[in-house]
Amino acid sequence: MYKIRTVGTVAAILAAFSVQAREPVDANTINRIADEGYNHGQVIALAAHLTDQIGGRMTNSPAMRQAEKWTQQMFTQWGLKNVHAEGFDFGRGWWIESASSRMVAPRPLPLTSIPVAWTPPTKGALTAPIVVAPIRHERDLAQWKGKVKGKIVLISYPEPLKDDTQVAFKRLDDSELGKMSTYDQPHFDPDAAVDGYKNWIQLPGNINRFLAAEGAVAIVKMSYRSQGLVHGEGYFHQKGETVPLPEVEMAAEDYRRLARLAKVGDVKLELNSNVHFDDRDMNAYNILAEIPGTDPKAGYVMAGAHLDSWVAGDGATDNGAGSVVVMEAARILSSLGVKPKRTIRFALWAGEEQGLDGSMAYIEKHLATRPRPTNAAEAKLPKFMWTTYPITPLPGFNDMAGYFNLDNGSGKIRGIYAEGNFAAVPVLKTWLAPFDSLGANKVVAKKTGGTDHQIMAAMGLPAFQFIQDPLDYGSKTHHSNLDTFDHLRTEDLRQAAVIMATVLLQAAEADQPMPRNVLPRQPSPTDPFKYRDPAKD
Amino acid sequence: MYKIRTVGTVAAILAAFSVQAREPVDANTINRIADEGYNHGQVIALAAHLTDQIGGRMTNSPAMRQAEKWTQQMFTQWGLKNVHAEGFDFGRGWWIESASSRMVAPRPLPLTSIPVAWTPPTKGALTAPIVVAPIRHERDLAQWKGKVKGKIVLISYPEPLKDDTQVAFKRLDDSELGKMSTYDQPHFDPDAAVDGYKNWIQLPGNINRFLAAEGAVAIVKMSYRSQGLVHGEGYFHQKGETVPLPEVEMAAEDYRRLARLAKVGDVKLELNSNVHFDDRDMNAYNILAEIPGTDPKAGYVMAGAHLDSWVAGDGATDNGAGSVVVMEAARILSSLGVKPKRTIRFALWAGEEQGLDGSMAYIEKHLATRPRPTNAAEAKLPKFMWTTYPITPLPGFNDMAGYFNLDNGSGKIRGIYAEGNFAAVPVLKTWLAPFDSLGANKVVAKKTGGTDHQIMAAMGLPAFQFIQDPLDYGSKTHHSNLDTFDHLRTEDLRQAAVIMATVLLQAAEADQPMPRNVLPRQPSPTDPFKYRDPAKD
Repeated sequence: MYKIRTVGTVAAILAAFSVQAREPVDANTINRIADEGYNHGQVIALAAHLTDQIGGRMTNSPAMRQAEKWTQQMFTQWGLKNVHAEGFDFGRGWWIESASSRMVAPRPLPLTSIPVAWTPPTKGALTAPIVVAPIRHERDLAQWKGKVKGKIVLISYPEPLKDDTQVAFKRLDDSELGKMSTYDQPHFDPDAAVDGYKNWIQLPGNINRFLAAEGAVAIVKMSYRSQGLVHGEGYFHQKGETVPLPEVEMAAEDYRRLARLAKVGDVKLELNSNVHFDDRDMNAYNILAEIPGTDPKAGYVMAGAHLDSWVAGDGATDNGAGSVVVMEAARILSSLGVKPKRTIRFALWAGEEQGLDGSMAYIEKHLATRPRPTNAAEAKLPKFMWTTYPITPLPGFNDMAGYFNLDNGSGKIRGIYAEGNFAAVPVLKTWLAPFDSLGANKVVAKKTGGTDHQIMAAMGLPAFQFIQDPLDYGSKTHHSNLDTFDHLRTEDLRQAAVIMATVLLQAAEADQPMPRNVLPRQPSPTDPFKYRDPAKD
Repeated sequence: MYKIRTVGTVAAILAAFSVQAREPVDANTINRIADEGYNHGQVIALAAHLTDQIGGRMTNSPAMRQAEKWTQQMFTQWGLKNVHAEGFDFGRGWWIESASSRMVAPRPLPLTSIPVAWTPPTKGALTAPIVVAPIRHERDLAQWKGKVKGKIVLISYPEPLKDDTQVAFKRLDDSELGKMSTYDQPHFDPDAAVDGYKNWIQLPGNINRFLAAEGAVAIVKMSYRSQGLVHGEGYFHQKGETVPLPEVEMAAEDYRRLARLAKVGDVKLELNSNVHFDDRDMNAYNILAEIPGTDPKAGYVMAGAHLDSWVAGDGATDNGAGSVVVMEAARILSSLGVKPKRTIRFALWAGEEQGLDGSMAYIEKHLATRPRPTNAAEAKLPKFMWTTYPITPLPGFNDMAGYFNLDNGSGKIRGIYAEGNFAAVPVLKTWLAPFDSLGANKVVAKKTGGTDHQIMAAMGLPAFQFIQDPLDYGSKTHHSNLDTFDHLRTEDLRQAAVIMATVLLQAAEADQPMPRNVLPRQPSPTDPFKYRDPAKD
């Protein structure tokens, strides 16, 4: 069996710029990790299974249930301990059996669209004339009263196509990495959460219910990307929230054509959303697995990525990539037989796409809680958007000695966002030092959002997200029908797994636990003299 | 009524670098053309009708028949003369009423695909297991004997996705325009036509017939572009050539997923190609219209663009754009009441996409002929690929005093390809001189191919193609499902119409007819010592 030695060459050299006196991970272990990841890696086979075989994994869908089982099987097969699924209340399952849309008048034409998640089925082919009724605000609803009966309603404003003058697939160069060093000071706007509620949840629900009450038969919205991409995000997954009308998101080119044709004549569509709800189990499940630590008092470090995806594509870059890198890091460390001081815990979250629900559930169970908002609008938002205080640490709060999240596509790791934890910057720099030639050497205090580490950091935990090359994540694959295995990059995923495994081991073996940020308290508003802008209502 | 004056300021200034003594177009007329095009232009309304209302216009399809009628109506309405359709033998009509494809095993998944033009319908939903049988050569067929019965056969090699590191939407900068000044000497390879036959026509037909004889039920090929684009080009439009098996082209991401899944298990597809043949009229039609010249002995100048498109998208940039610019140039000149010396003829070609068939039919009827090849393979190729001599001028050969083609998408005009007609370069430069500030000032001797002027130039006629900004034509829209109105640019089309109208009028009024190239004779092979490469067989 392998045993970690406590002095190493790399560690000795690097001790100079570390706040910690010593790096106990044997440098040879880093090389063994690299050998296992590069020469015996399984990350791409894992990715193929997760994306091609299982496919898109909306939380509580049948595919996500498969993924929950398969990931636990893999962790168990690799010898991880305490492998289990931890449930939390989420809502309805939903999946697409088949779906199509086409124009039937003024001429026959197949259209590209996708049912919006958690909207009801059309119950066979639904054929009806369209009306274009762009609605941006609650106040826009009234003008459509009496005008939508029996119609398929196109509710988006047909924003024109922009010239596609940006490179779709990119890697970060030194100048772009350099700009990330700038720390953006935090801003606090008490209105933000309420605006989030209005735009994200209240308005789409009200539109759907209003149009249903007015006798409309279905809703079409326009994709927010052009070039034929569709996404289909929807937010009414909780029982009792389900909206009455079937809704599809249509490719922008197709939507704009319908909108133009409707200016000069009658347009008729046929929609077919053969989708299904599945209410057999309203719990979603985070998948957890461990390499146990040798010192029961030393707590744990944690790697996380969300296993769930959206409905379009196969959830490859968002976030099959992060999930299989976390799995591969677990496999590598387990196969090397490491016995770290701290436990290394691996988490594959559910419900991330609906608002970091899985990681929030973990936090509330194991780490810390915050009060339910008294503002009814804020209380309806995903908990990660709550801005209530005080944060109350649970007994496990201090056991969590570092959380590392990976969720920015398939691009290789270029560094780490320290999320405002300034004291952690030199520590993380030390840990990344072996990986200069892998392009992963940038540690910045900057915060980045949009995924599970964000809520951990916001609750006062030492949580970090890796900086990754963007590839075509932002331009193409994020949440879209192009989020398939093709858009993964084998070499990038291998690199990420090697770095993830090494950083976890270093965090688990460090003499001192990761420097922690202060426990957040009610922040002062950035602009105490701000008036609410009526344009936002 | 307007009458052309014979001296003008711009003409006087420009006479210095013209081989012609005088430019008889009144400079004020150029300004009237610009005013009509920019301030009273209809080009974008024409484009919307042609692409949104009529849509994709495969030669001899019902939509193309509509376009034939509508374009004649418009020419007539604008007061053009001799408006008529000139028929030529083409083949079968074909159109898609509806089409879809999905994976049914190992999991349900909608797929993006398009029926290949002129392949037969599936007659309802066709469900069958797949086999991946990449076939690049005739010699690859034998290994699939006995292995495809009852199967849907995936015949493409699943080339992996390339990083999308080029900007999709581009305008030419001075450096790129500068590079176009280099004249590429002509090359003649006697094998080229035969290789064209093998790759383009013989192999796809043989694959389809072989797989049908082996009991396969349908064919799927992979799109040659990624990012979800499909095209569906097919070449068996002639009666008696129709292939037996339904065939679809699938989005590359979807195709590769199927190919990967087939490596590890059984995959089943459902295909539905609800397509129709239409044999009511096997003739295709070029649409012709004129502004008559005042001097019956002066011949005519001609503008041309092909009205037909492929099956995916609405034929917007290929070549609705060129068609509506030609139409708008006709409308502008007619509305100004010009009475040019030479007739100005406007041509909207059919059958361009199957091999410049419409312009070739016009040439054979009015301009020149060449012998039918004795080589059977070459004789089966579209006539523009024939390399037989001598070219025999018809009586109308010298009447044609200049042909101007527009067929490189929606981008504005940046100059003119003089197609090896060196003597025409200074003349064309003079004509473009007013348009420096429109970015259209580059005249190059370089040849460019792929559209109707090519065969005119190859037959010894003074034929030219405009240089255009590429926009996203090559990267996205050319022949694809994204070839929709959205990808047109109003300002570019207006600029092109103004320049097209002006150049035509200058050509029609020029004292001297356009310098002509010599009549092409049998060229000497570029490499007389070349051996045939067995890899090509």
